[in-house]
Amino acid sequence: MIELVGFDGDDTLWHSQGYFDQAQAGFEAILANYIDVADAGLHARILATEQANLALYGYGAKAMTLSMLETAVAVTDGRIAGADVEAILALGRAVLRHPVELLPGIRAAVEAVAAEHAVVLVTKGDLFHQERKVAQCGLADLFRRIEIVSEKDSATYGRVLAEFGVAPAGFAMVGNSLRSDIEPVLRLGGWGVHLPYASTWAHELETSLGADDPRMVVATTPAQVPTALARLKALAGA
Amino acid sequence: MIELVGFDGDDTLWHSQGYFDQAQAGFEAILANYIDVADAGLHARILATEQANLALYGYGAKAMTLSMLETAVAVTDGRIAGADVEAILALGRAVLRHPVELLPGIRAAVEAVAAEHAVVLVTKGDLFHQERKVAQCGLADLFRRIEIVSEKDSATYGRVLAEFGVAPAGFAMVGNSLRSDIEPVLRLGGWGVHLPYASTWAHELETSLGADDPRMVVATTPAQVPTALARLKALAGA
Repeated sequence: MIELVGFDGDDTLWHSQGYFDQAQAGFEAILANYIDVADAGLHARILATEQANLALYGYGAKAMTLSMLETAVAVTDGRIAGADVEAILALGRAVLRHPVELLPGIRAAVEAVAAEHAVVLVTKGDLFHQERKVAQCGLADLFRRIEIVSEKDSATYGRVLAEFGVAPAGFAMVGNSLRSDIEPVLRLGGWGVHLPYASTWAHELETSLGADDPRMVVATTPAQVPTALARLKALAGA
Repeated sequence: MIELVGFDGDDTLWHSQGYFDQAQAGFEAILANYIDVADAGLHARILATEQANLALYGYGAKAMTLSMLETAVAVTDGRIAGADVEAILALGRAVLRHPVELLPGIRAAVEAVAAEHAVVLVTKGDLFHQERKVAQCGLADLFRRIEIVSEKDSATYGRVLAEFGVAPAGFAMVGNSLRSDIEPVLRLGGWGVHLPYASTWAHELETSLGADDPRMVVATTPAQVPTALARLKALAGA
């Protein structure tokens, strides 16, 4: 019944959030020269700025860098030094330049799934950066198609599945984010394999999905993904 | 013989470069408080920074904003004030927020072409911003498919045409940029309608295309596009 399997990119195929976390830590270290970072609630403030800017900037490292600079000017009342503006720009460039490192075991998992299903890559974020990561990851040939989208909601998955000619009930998505990879697919009537990652951006934690949803199976390691899919297929066929 | 017609978005369907030019003028006005803009060759310097950053940032207003900030720190030796960092961020936000204004006559031109051919939109730049412009332009329903790509070179057009199942000889592209819309399509063996725009980013002026290429016709207004296509079809059929 499940004829098409989608994989997420960031933190499902390759490490990503850790680089953003490093940039965040570097940002707080720079700002610590100006303000009491904890007193100022800097952590919550940068997240609020990033979320407020989502509708204008979208996701990705360039958006994060612009939000960090906006926050830096605001929380220092304009005292941020030019050298620190450049240091924040460099934090963003480091995220964009990081090498693509596959998660341990993911290549074998994708190969095993691709041997039995058509597989596609559905990834969100900055088009340019995502394309580079796809080109460098060494897995691109396994995917029938690669879709880079600006937002992963039910409308987007619906459009992509229509282009693929696959009904939602015939689609399972594998990913680390309940909010972006699992919930919108389940809402359409599809299936999900949740592969949690060590670190998740706070924005992606916002979900109304119950942990016991019957259309979702959790894989705690990439090696468990093929087995998780087999369980979903048994459920889908029942 | 020409079965598919592609339209570019920025400065072909809707105004775009003028907003970037406004941001550039605003940037130079800010920097004029620190340096002699002409003496410092600021115009050439920001273009050089943007081109050097293309491989990392790609195209679009977020990339431009980051390059403006990098240039501002460099040319002021770090003296740029926080308030001016915010002013530069605001210049970038204004570009992202500008309303979508269609070029006069383009709606009728696209409708006329769409009545006789399958038409697609092939646009380059920031995924998020391009999607919003497509959603707001009111023409999206006329296009069979909308492709937002990170670079418009022959490889990209080749991939897109393969997905459409159309040979290059059956494809004509309508756009304002010789570098991005015309040259790579002609190189593949396709056809081009050049619709020049009042203002062109210096980067897009770099082309090795001769003005007398027999596979290209110039339309000086959108209203001339259907006639220009008819001329190409006569050539293609000959």
